[in-house]
Amino acid sequence: MKVRIHVSLKPGVLDPQGRAVHHALEGLGYDGVKDVRIGRQVEMDVADDTGDAALDEMCRRLLANTVIEDYRIEKVGVA
Amino acid sequence: MKVRIHVSLKPGVLDPQGRAVHHALEGLGYDGVKDVRIGRQVEMDVADDTGDAALDEMCRRLLANTVIEDYRIEKVGVA
Repeated sequence: MKVRIHVSLKPGVLDPQGRAVHHALEGLGYDGVKDVRIGRQVEMDVADDTGDAALDEMCRRLLANTVIEDYRIEKVGVA
Repeated sequence: MKVRIHVSLKPGVLDPQGRAVHHALEGLGYDGVKDVRIGRQVEMDVADDTGDAALDEMCRRLLANTVIEDYRIEKVGVA
């Protein structure tokens, strides 16, 4: 089973990497960009019998820092 | 308009970060994980009149390294 986990900074948490990218885009002449936030994406191939609880636990224990980050689990399909 | 850009390593490109996460998950006792790949996610708030060509150009010029990375542009909706 393919699982995609999207980890993004919580709203309000400063994102210096996003600001740098925003600044760089402006420098390249893209004026229409209002905001940029950078996140992480973890693509995993897990055993088909992996439950939602186990995936959630992986996120909380290792993949995301829940103090400053949100995560979203997306099941891409059985592969 | 909210746009989400998913940047991931091309298949075959070595992903040491993914291997480290995989190893760490195994160390925590999650045996069902077969593969882990780490990617990047760029969430942008852009002007509504930003065209697909401009978004594609941003990816090619700055957001992704097309030599080793693939990208996918997802429009999340007008915000």
